[in-house]
Amino acid sequence: MKVINLHDLDDTEHDVEHGNWRSRRFVLAKDGVGFSFHDTVLYAGTESDFWYAHHVECVYVYAGSGTLLNRDTGEEFPLAPGTVYLLDKHDKHTVRVEEEIHCACVFNPPVTGREVHDEHGVYPVIHEEAATA
Amino acid sequence: MKVINLHDLDDTEHDVEHGNWRSRRFVLAKDGVGFSFHDTVLYAGTESDFWYAHHVECVYVYAGSGTLLNRDTGEEFPLAPGTVYLLDKHDKHTVRVEEEIHCACVFNPPVTGREVHDEHGVYPVIHEEAATA
Repeated sequence: MKVINLHDLDDTEHDVEHGNWRSRRFVLAKDGVGFSFHDTVLYAGTESDFWYAHHVECVYVYAGSGTLLNRDTGEEFPLAPGTVYLLDKHDKHTVRVEEEIHCACVFNPPVTGREVHDEHGVYPVIHEEAATA
Repeated sequence: MKVINLHDLDDTEHDVEHGNWRSRRFVLAKDGVGFSFHDTVLYAGTESDFWYAHHVECVYVYAGSGTLLNRDTGEEFPLAPGTVYLLDKHDKHTVRVEEEIHCACVFNPPVTGREVHDEHGVYPVIHEEAATA
């Protein structure tokens, strides 16, 4: 069992800030559980394009509001507490934030923590052996 | 892309109530993404024993408060918004709830939605082919 508080991650290597957003990673590839698990804050008034060509992502908004655009289809969806979006087709998407959004995110394959979004907003896949704990 | 609101699941087959808790399942094995993703409410004043002998679970408390007991080690941990606990060793555990707890839960292998906790609080593994969408 591992117990971690969000603020335990502040200003550590598990705390990644990138202009429009901040992501704190509770569970990464090295934990060896088959997914990674992050808390992400998307700042008010921002608009960000994302595309995970190599990962499935599930996002659960638990605070804040905004709009999700599926750039592959043109569909728009409101984001509010209780909204989940599952990117099961590597969907290109844009998030526009009204009130600061706080969300829980799951990635499969798990993120190692060393990826950066490239110019297309794509995370590369980095293979890492799970630590044997 | 799938977009689901928590209340879309109310009183559907994805809404499972079990005395001390209620679990609404956004993502299940049939979604074929390698994990399941649930919102779980644990009711105030309750105490529940859990043991997932066959699954890894990650729990993120985003509202409420209580105490987590690791029954394998006797350790206790406070639960509050921002607490994650990762059951990476099939840890036997007990959750005591002060204020109603709301949490996001990830299971690997993914839950099919047909499991019930048996007398040991154990979910069996049920194999299901992923739907090809």
